[in-house]
Amino acid sequence: GASQYHLDLIGIEATRMNALLLSSYFGEFSNGEPFRTVEEAALYGELYPVVVGGGTVPGHSTDAVSALVAERVGAELFVNLTAVDGVYDRDPRKHEDARLLEKISTEELLRLTVSGGFSAGTHMVIDPLAAVILHRSGIKCAVANGSKLDNLKSILRGEEFAGTLILPSGGV
Amino acid sequence: GASQYHLDLIGIEATRMNALLLSSYFGEFSNGEPFRTVEEAALYGELYPVVVGGGTVPGHSTDAVSALVAERVGAELFVNLTAVDGVYDRDPRKHEDARLLEKISTEELLRLTVSGGFSAGTHMVIDPLAAVILHRSGIKCAVANGSKLDNLKSILRGEEFAGTLILPSGGV
Amino acid sequence: GASQYHLDLIGIEATRMNALLLSSYFGEFSNGEPFRTVEEAALYGELYPVVVGGGTVPGHSTDAVSALVAERVGAELFVNLTAVDGVYDRDPRKHEDARLLEKISTEELLRLTVSGGFSAGTHMVIDPLAAVILHRSGIKCAVANGSKLDNLKSILRGEEFAGTLILPSGGV
Amino acid sequence: GASQYHLDLIGIEATRMNALLLSSYFGEFSNGEPFRTVEEAALYGELYPVVVGGGTVPGHSTDAVSALVAERVGAELFVNLTAVDGVYDRDPRKHEDARLLEKISTEELLRLTVSGGFSAGTHMVIDPLAAVILHRSGIKCAVANGSKLDNLKSILRGEEFAGTLILPSGGV
Amino acid sequence: GASQYHLDLIGIEATRMNALLLSSYFGEFSNGEPFRTVEEAALYGELYPVVVGGGTVPGHSTDAVSALVAERVGAELFVNLTAVDGVYDRDPRKHEDARLLEKISTEELLRLTVSGGFSAGTHMVIDPLAAVILHRSGIKCAVANGSKLDNLKSILRGEEFAGTLILPSGGV
Amino acid sequence: GASQYHLDLIGIEATRMNALLLSSYFGEFSNGEPFRTVEEAALYGELYPVVVGGGTVPGHSTDAVSALVAERVGAELFVNLTAVDGVYDRDPRKHEDARLLEKISTEELLRLTVSGGFSAGTHMVIDPLAAVILHRSGIKCAVANGSKLDNLKSILRGEEFAGTLILPSGGV
Repeated sequence: GASQYHLDLIGIEATRMNALLLSSYFGEFSNGEPFRTVEEAALYGELYPVVVGGGTVPGHSTDAVSALVAERVGAELFVNLTAVDGVYDRDPRKHEDARLLEKISTEELLRLTVSGGFSAGTHMVIDPLAAVILHRSGIKCAVANGSKLDNLKSILRGEEFAGTLILPSGGV
Repeated sequence: GASQYHLDLIGIEATRMNALLLSSYFGEFSNGEPFRTVEEAALYGELYPVVVGGGTVPGHSTDAVSALVAERVGAELFVNLTAVDGVYDRDPRKHEDARLLEKISTEELLRLTVSGGFSAGTHMVIDPLAAVILHRSGIKCAVANGSKLDNLKSILRGEEFAGTLILPSGGV
Repeated sequence: GASQYHLDLIGIEATRMNALLLSSYFGEFSNGEPFRTVEEAALYGELYPVVVGGGTVPGHSTDAVSALVAERVGAELFVNLTAVDGVYDRDPRKHEDARLLEKISTEELLRLTVSGGFSAGTHMVIDPLAAVILHRSGIKCAVANGSKLDNLKSILRGEEFAGTLILPSGGV
Repeated sequence: GASQYHLDLIGIEATRMNALLLSSYFGEFSNGEPFRTVEEAALYGELYPVVVGGGTVPGHSTDAVSALVAERVGAELFVNLTAVDGVYDRDPRKHEDARLLEKISTEELLRLTVSGGFSAGTHMVIDPLAAVILHRSGIKCAVANGSKLDNLKSILRGEEFAGTLILPSGGV
Repeated sequence: GASQYHLDLIGIEATRMNALLLSSYFGEFSNGEPFRTVEEAALYGELYPVVVGGGTVPGHSTDAVSALVAERVGAELFVNLTAVDGVYDRDPRKHEDARLLEKISTEELLRLTVSGGFSAGTHMVIDPLAAVILHRSGIKCAVANGSKLDNLKSILRGEEFAGTLILPSGGV
Repeated sequence: GASQYHLDLIGIEATRMNALLLSSYFGEFSNGEPFRTVEEAALYGELYPVVVGGGTVPGHSTDAVSALVAERVGAELFVNLTAVDGVYDRDPRKHEDARLLEKISTEELLRLTVSGGFSAGTHMVIDPLAAVILHRSGIKCAVANGSKLDNLKSILRGEEFAGTLILPSGGV
């Protein structure tokens, strides 16, 4: 079978194709080819209202890449729109009594992502490396369901929203 | 809708993903990431027994890219394994009496690819830009059905094969 | 003799040298080194009032490169200043009765560039690959003699000009 | 103060400087400039008997980079020469009764690196991301004190050595 | 010992690390990774109020790199803040009677930098290649002690300052 | 007029075009596109019997580039085939009594290249930056007229030749 390294490369290509679909939607208001480095993302941020990107190198999830971009540009808020409603205390697909966490610290996020072993944290919407980065730089995060666009409006206005708010716990 | 330029980018990404599937099969006997330039392809050809690649830049088909690689390295034979049985005198999907051509010149190939207007030549297994390159450099080509592996053996041994042999007509 | 691939590389270098002459004229109002990719051209377009470039990769004419840039940035008008007065119905150097075409569609342009075989279209001011791109994206073009600067003024003002106006025929 | 992102960049530069000291020792038997990507490392591996490198991008430790290189080239053994004697069950600087582990599985390695929270695993000689990679690809590892060169000889000969042997636990 | 080429590479890495310390101070108001080419420096100059960089390639001092950047962007003034008080007529560390030069031409600068043989000019605050560039393009320079920030204010206001003013002598 | 920086860029492009003429002659026995960095030159040296290149960055002559490549790969001999017969003690186009120097040290070479001011050394076959590099690394050089191919044979065999032999004077 294919090596894990090659699977990572294939996964990166898949996220880049998604990014291209976005950039084709935004046309000249966005970079065309998805950025390949965090530095390039920062540069495009000075030039285009919308910046699209996917994976960059094997070993980095798109979560980690976007957390690094947030860190590089000194972002005030990291918004993660995803397929679930937020961060749960346990895997909601396995545990009926899993509870959505409305407000946690980046430290709690980090502990949750690695609970039960690194690779086992797959129910998490944010992966461990991204959690490390968000925690070490104390970046505020909002995690919400991407299919409900009202959420995004509320988040950007600083209002209450359905999902999880993650607050810095003081950096490393 | 998406611009044609972006559609090209998306198409390139799709061919690169196919290339990655191949490279994950060959592992350390192949370059991992598909080459991004013809020059890089030539360099990998000095290092790995198998070189994988897909599209490189918008405006170039994978046919054109591989014809350029053949030109760069002075290849003696260009083998195109594809989903049909070879080059036909007319579109076999539209014309029941379409005839498979067993032996043609690169000049005939070129004429066929642009007959009826450039963009209309979509039944052809080789696109016009690739045909220009193969013709201008007088590169011998074999076109055959990729699902019949015996064809490849025959081609590489210089024996008769089911498909189309394209011979140089003297270059430009 | 040199391979066609190497001749392409040499031709690219020659167009880059011309581009450098332009950029040395515009100094800090232009990128210094000619762009190497269409994406880079788009990025420079956000930063400099004048963007200079030449050929990029073997197999692409400068016509094709600039058509791709026009496609990438969503240009409204593609202006081609050249050494002849516009697009003719046949090669004016061979046929005394060749007629300058004042207004054609991109489809007619495409048919003209490939008439008589792909490689034979050398009397055309726009090459076939560029014609494909202009046609597929429905980009309006103006072709005029570059030695008469009044033409450029008229073109940019949307007035009548001596040359050929090429109108989109509806895209692919 | 400096952002964590910039601190990562500075740390990368420091590891690259160490790599340059190595490459200056090996001269023409090594790449001069440290590799910048895993793919480049694989390519240099085909050309030079010694390949030097350091950090590549923010978010990746040198452990993770070398684990990815091992994964890319299908390495049979990953050797980590370091400043301590191997992998301990707890931090030997804090716990007098910490025990050197002579043989563990990659799964145990992974659990150890994330025990007590991701960022707290700083007594570990291998970081969590590297552990994930070594575990997911089932790569055998030897960790030993780099100041005792006899260890390296024993490791390369497949003999017993003073340190920790990490065996694949079956992949993910 | 290490080759001079590798020592150059190590020296470049050291200047890049200094540049990173600066960029970590300026955060999002500066490029993060130091530029790698003069062209990249010019591009960053269009995007960030502060541009940081160090050495680029073996054989080029940071003096030469910054002189080339000044040349590329058509700078009116080249400011060199350094550890000494300006340009002396002879090495002040060896000669007690060395005299600080308040105003010289770029031609005199050039002669001073190569006096006594190229490699012997080590007491000079500007190296010969930078001097060649400043002279050939007639770029005005101010050299002053970097530890006295009032100097910088005076220089930027076009007032008198403690140090050396170097005026173009008419170019080559 | 054009800036000196742009003139450098144009000069670089001209030398790259010469390099392409060479590479088109050697075909697949040489890199196609001229190398862009010294590191790339070293890498091509492991892959092709002939490596072609020209200028790389503004501020570096082709002399300097090739001296750096010699330094990078630890070359035993640096051969400079040129349009004159060797190194003279003064400009042979201005002084009838100029004398060809049969054997000099790299230190003498350095002194000659900067005599009478840096920019005035234009009668020299090797420029000052290249001389600095050859001197600092103690690289043996042979300078001879390129139009007499017998010279090259003699040089490569280590026999006497018509031209100038430059011997290391002990490094810096």
